[in-house]
Amino acid sequence: MQRWKLTIEYDGRPFVGWQRQDNGMSVQQALEEAVQRLSGEEARLHASGRTDAGVHALGQVAHVDLAKPFLPDRVRDGLNFHLRPWPVAVLAAEPVGEEFHARFTCTGRSYVYRIVNRRAPLALEGGRAWHVRRPLDASAMHEAAQVLVGRHDFTTFRAALCQANSPVRTLDRLEVTRHGEELRVFAAARSFLHHQVRNMVGTLELVGAGKWTAADVSRALEARNRARGGPTAPPDGLHFLDARY
Amino acid sequence: MQRWKLTIEYDGRPFVGWQRQDNGMSVQQALEEAVQRLSGEEARLHASGRTDAGVHALGQVAHVDLAKPFLPDRVRDGLNFHLRPWPVAVLAAEPVGEEFHARFTCTGRSYVYRIVNRRAPLALEGGRAWHVRRPLDASAMHEAAQVLVGRHDFTTFRAALCQANSPVRTLDRLEVTRHGEELRVFAAARSFLHHQVRNMVGTLELVGAGKWTAADVSRALEARNRARGGPTAPPDGLHFLDARY
Repeated sequence: MQRWKLTIEYDGRPFVGWQRQDNGMSVQQALEEAVQRLSGEEARLHASGRTDAGVHALGQVAHVDLAKPFLPDRVRDGLNFHLRPWPVAVLAAEPVGEEFHARFTCTGRSYVYRIVNRRAPLALEGGRAWHVRRPLDASAMHEAAQVLVGRHDFTTFRAALCQANSPVRTLDRLEVTRHGEELRVFAAARSFLHHQVRNMVGTLELVGAGKWTAADVSRALEARNRARGGPTAPPDGLHFLDARY
Repeated sequence: MQRWKLTIEYDGRPFVGWQRQDNGMSVQQALEEAVQRLSGEEARLHASGRTDAGVHALGQVAHVDLAKPFLPDRVRDGLNFHLRPWPVAVLAAEPVGEEFHARFTCTGRSYVYRIVNRRAPLALEGGRAWHVRRPLDASAMHEAAQVLVGRHDFTTFRAALCQANSPVRTLDRLEVTRHGEELRVFAAARSFLHHQVRNMVGTLELVGAGKWTAADVSRALEARNRARGGPTAPPDGLHFLDARY
């Protein structure tokens, strides 16, 4: 049995999310079916973390155990061949030891959330960014974001359905930068709660629009109450960036 | 009668190209139908230049004459409303004088051609970039590109169907840069021949792969013979960037 670490890119639009579900195609199912066509094995994939429907990945990491021996390039190219026509690509396949676990040994995850801030609709980036029409102040958003950095109870930014045991997380970085009409929110932590990035971005958007101040964000965090946070930003802008081990 | 300058973004995938054709929807038709729904006028749009099927635009410029008076924001927002669901967005609408002509008074056009250079298929950038699997040397491509800069007879890089009177053009800039796994070819000139950018990129790809040298590109240019140039790069990677006046 060989454990394989896979680095995966996907467009989240056609999927119900990472995890297998009864109501549609998941990234996990697309990959597991490709594994079966490549090796004949019914193997389960474990990701560093689930992503919701419509959320994209530039560098998701997953592992799978295969009994049949393969060369690394054959795993990557063979999976890519069998993944067509789904918009999922295996960027790298590396043999790893059994001590490696995509989820449990992951020491850092990062996301980038893209906002296109302009009046006109998105002809090229529809589904790949959140379209915000009202002008946003990226500096004010970045400043308010620093309130959330560090170890906190993130109940205010946690989905009602979140299954994590504890709402306490340590947010290492939350940075907002403007690149022309595009704003990027970069978030890094050991792990995130369900919807945490989208809920933080939805709250920072209120700051960018001048509706909230950094002090409002601080009070919302301290309230430990989802109803006190801003709205959940749409999945379109969220991109899973990478997982560290 | 008021002349309007429109700055336009579009995803070229669902279109037969800029120009109206009998065999499918064009960007021009989508815009002219939106103009009619907004103002009730059957007005013709003139673009700075045509783009082929599958070619994208970040800043195409076109003009249209409207008898009915409008505020600029109303032209932009009204056209965008009526353009749905086509992936075409009017970024700006400005009133201009009758001396302005999107095609005939344009003094500079620029394009960027995107190549993603890696083994794995493109899950996120399919249709938006040329996927080249073999490793490319961007520095060698940039060096060879300089052979093409300046005033030349570009017959070697001109489509057989090109309708321009003269094959002579002055290429102001042709720059190849690498950004991680992505290569960008930036091209600027007063005007381009039909397929000129795609034919130059297809030739530079041969240089990047080590099949051709800069001297081969020079000889191909001097031959003034399309059969001596490299292949035509696919439309996917080509983005019309902007038009200057």
